[in-house]
Amino acid sequence: MSTSRLLSPLHLCGKSASLHRHKSAVSVSVRSLLCSENQKSHRMMASYQPSLSIDNINPNVKVMEYAVRGPLVIRAGEIEKELEKGVKKPFKEVIKANIGDCHAMGQQPITIIRQVLALVSYPKLLDDPRFPEDAKERARTLLKGCRGGSMGSYTDSPGIEVIRRHVAEYIERRDGIPADWQNIVIGGGASDAIKNVLKILICPIDGKKPGVMIPIPQYPLYSATLAEFNMAQIGYYLDEANNWGLSVDELQRSITEARKTCAVRAIVVINPGNPTGQVLTKQNIQEIVKFAHKEKLFILADEVYQHNIYDPNSEFHSFKKVMHEMGEPYSQMELASFMSASKGYMGECGLRGGYAEVLNMHPDVRAQYLKAITAMLCSTTLGQACLDVIMNPPQEGEPSYELYLKEKTSVLESLKVRAKMVADTFNSMEGFSCNTVQGAMYAFPQFKLPPKAIEAAKAKNQAPDAFYAFELLESTGICVVPGSGFGQRPGTHHFRTTILPQTDKLKDMLDKFAEFHAQFLKKYS
Amino acid sequence: MSTSRLLSPLHLCGKSASLHRHKSAVSVSVRSLLCSENQKSHRMMASYQPSLSIDNINPNVKVMEYAVRGPLVIRAGEIEKELEKGVKKPFKEVIKANIGDCHAMGQQPITIIRQVLALVSYPKLLDDPRFPEDAKERARTLLKGCRGGSMGSYTDSPGIEVIRRHVAEYIERRDGIPADWQNIVIGGGASDAIKNVLKILICPIDGKKPGVMIPIPQYPLYSATLAEFNMAQIGYYLDEANNWGLSVDELQRSITEARKTCAVRAIVVINPGNPTGQVLTKQNIQEIVKFAHKEKLFILADEVYQHNIYDPNSEFHSFKKVMHEMGEPYSQMELASFMSASKGYMGECGLRGGYAEVLNMHPDVRAQYLKAITAMLCSTTLGQACLDVIMNPPQEGEPSYELYLKEKTSVLESLKVRAKMVADTFNSMEGFSCNTVQGAMYAFPQFKLPPKAIEAAKAKNQAPDAFYAFELLESTGICVVPGSGFGQRPGTHHFRTTILPQTDKLKDMLDKFAEFHAQFLKKYS
Repeated sequence: MSTSRLLSPLHLCGKSASLHRHKSAVSVSVRSLLCSENQKSHRMMASYQPSLSIDNINPNVKVMEYAVRGPLVIRAGEIEKELEKGVKKPFKEVIKANIGDCHAMGQQPITIIRQVLALVSYPKLLDDPRFPEDAKERARTLLKGCRGGSMGSYTDSPGIEVIRRHVAEYIERRDGIPADWQNIVIGGGASDAIKNVLKILICPIDGKKPGVMIPIPQYPLYSATLAEFNMAQIGYYLDEANNWGLSVDELQRSITEARKTCAVRAIVVINPGNPTGQVLTKQNIQEIVKFAHKEKLFILADEVYQHNIYDPNSEFHSFKKVMHEMGEPYSQMELASFMSASKGYMGECGLRGGYAEVLNMHPDVRAQYLKAITAMLCSTTLGQACLDVIMNPPQEGEPSYELYLKEKTSVLESLKVRAKMVADTFNSMEGFSCNTVQGAMYAFPQFKLPPKAIEAAKAKNQAPDAFYAFELLESTGICVVPGSGFGQRPGTHHFRTTILPQTDKLKDMLDKFAEFHAQFLKKYS
Repeated sequence: MSTSRLLSPLHLCGKSASLHRHKSAVSVSVRSLLCSENQKSHRMMASYQPSLSIDNINPNVKVMEYAVRGPLVIRAGEIEKELEKGVKKPFKEVIKANIGDCHAMGQQPITIIRQVLALVSYPKLLDDPRFPEDAKERARTLLKGCRGGSMGSYTDSPGIEVIRRHVAEYIERRDGIPADWQNIVIGGGASDAIKNVLKILICPIDGKKPGVMIPIPQYPLYSATLAEFNMAQIGYYLDEANNWGLSVDELQRSITEARKTCAVRAIVVINPGNPTGQVLTKQNIQEIVKFAHKEKLFILADEVYQHNIYDPNSEFHSFKKVMHEMGEPYSQMELASFMSASKGYMGECGLRGGYAEVLNMHPDVRAQYLKAITAMLCSTTLGQACLDVIMNPPQEGEPSYELYLKEKTSVLESLKVRAKMVADTFNSMEGFSCNTVQGAMYAFPQFKLPPKAIEAAKAKNQAPDAFYAFELLESTGICVVPGSGFGQRPGTHHFRTTILPQTDKLKDMLDKFAEFHAQFLKKYS
């Protein structure tokens, strides 16, 4: 793999931006996996030249990268297959700490969510006395909201009306201020909802490429989508020394540089942070809002981890609420806030449910935004149904309430313990420093590498953090994502690990990690 | 509504293409619906100017239209709400014949599909003796294919391996030739799968805009997606006089004209046809393949209606099979074939399951294509599970086989009756001619309008077919889609109606339709 060069945020703007580029060795690895069983058709092709070649396909797709499913993860998949085939390794299983995939790591589904899904899928079960009445009531309401009473019908493109109403009620309860169900647009996961908003912003201004401010480090959905849309990525560094908070000075530096070459249209804030795990203070949010107002930016608030707060000194403040409390003109600013069924205590990643609440968009723009999603018809009804239960959970007095509360609390309490365990362990390791995991599902520790390791990485044409992560994977089966996939200050090394392995397994993983690190330091000292 | 101008296919290429443009009155209608409850925030905005205006958002989104969910359908929704509020109308309900939404029109789900969905959603039901063993076995296999044994986990981006294998086996059974599961990419509906392939083609060649050949009339997903991607729409007319067949002369005319201004990269063929209902003969497919070979085009075969064949003289031939039988070099050409869980006998539109089989793509291109879908993580697991049952239906001897066969046959037999009923009725109406509905779910009759009606449409600034469809909707509650939404030869008038209302309701609808038409002719004679 070639050096994963991190372009400084200044340089990203105006380029066909990619936070990191992997070449040669990686391509080979990708190809070997993707094409192993296509050798035959490849050979056959010799006599027929395909119309598509690497030189005449979408250039934006070519520069796009998505590290959470990148080459390291592909190698992890290969190792899993090798283990299945009985290949001897110094470990028995791959631990996928690369992706926030809760159920894959042993988290159990919330019972009432799954009961409602079973009921709406197969309504004959509505007669089954073993299903609680509150699950049945929710299922009946959902079926009534579907044309022909079936989850098999298309819904309105922004989602089933009754679910959009439940989302609005959830937001009202959360923030204590009104929410309009017509501002809710349900998507196939938050990723889908985010892409649909970013898409609207694709428009050069005065010949300048449109750009969006994103945190560095960031969740690679943003870098991948901006690359696909040929929009400039305008990175602003999070302040690692200040527990990954946002500094207005840095926002100002970033936008000032960017404006030289591109039209800055929006700012993305991820709170709680991914991959960084910080929870923004109300004051920090106010500063960001004032900055966005001054610079006339559309705000995208990625708030999918709003249930995942572990630090007793931290509290989740929604951008909507803070902006409302700040009063005019801030309360009138454009805002899209995103939420997902995939994270929180439910972790229903595979079902694909999420929403955007879009505020203060000009009605003409709003009409175009809503029109743009119609051609994809609607998001999955069962993903929508899952979202519904999260938005409209059992209330005290309902038959499922106690079980629901127990399940929810148990997941969140356990994540809290794991968040602390992960940060503490890394902080106990030589050369590591890890901020408190206040929220979300990840730690993003910084680590120092001995010069010999950096040389060894260079010799292998790899970024030092990727070199480290590959050695970790091959030695222990632990799969993390190198910091270069998210962005980091030049010269620093990080990786993202989830805190999702169940407690015993996590403890085991961290023990192995510490052992590996000690060996690694010894090897390259 | 302004005249829905149909640009001739020649003129489409190179423009920021939209098959039809609706302005003024339509925008008002869209806005009144979308923004009725946002008046307050709109007024509030007076003191804050939003950053996004109609002049600085994505221009491709602005030109994009999706007639199946267009202004007429929005008006139909308004009428439904008026009826609910007790507003008096000459009819009691809106009949939505505008969209292929099977369950919404009363079609019942296939039992085993829904049983499997319930089982995988709530695996406790695996102990329930009332579920048949073959449903349980399928559910267990699917859960085993999911990480952590849960549908809540992310899957590989192209889908769950075991489902991809079942898709390949389905294709092998269908065509009698081998299929490789690694060529199968599951998406959130065929629409998603189609967009992901078209996306790869976005690349100007020698400064010329990339373009894709699409039939006229066509399914508006294609025009909408090409508009969004800023690709040229290169229309080729289907031959209405020849039951909507494809003529190579017309393909040649179309590509020759298009090449003057754009780079033609691919050809879309919809078989069975939407909105036209034809089933292509093997000979016709061979001619298209030879044409694509000569012109070096990537073939996109939209085969989502492969189960919907009604004419005893018609048979479904997959492009893959025909190309295989033609031998080299045709068997080596690039092909993407699409299939969906939304159509056929199952009609599970809301669950969002579909696949692409992608053949003979260059491995480097294929790697990019697969990479491009990773940032959206994966398509919905329950949509995938639904697709699995369709690909791996009960076999003779399995407990669910008889019920499954009865349900499937009953839907398809009834659609066959309805297909004939619709075409026969239209052909009995003055000024109408309707081709045999050989397959799919639609009729696309041509009708002549008296000069006075055309003048009245002009006075209302409407396309004549839209004028007719609006009058039909307001008088009878029947909602069809004007031909201008799909494209038609200039000066001709059509609409698309589904054949999906259940038989009694369809008969009633057609009676009303005939009555309306007689009145309409009288009024404008």
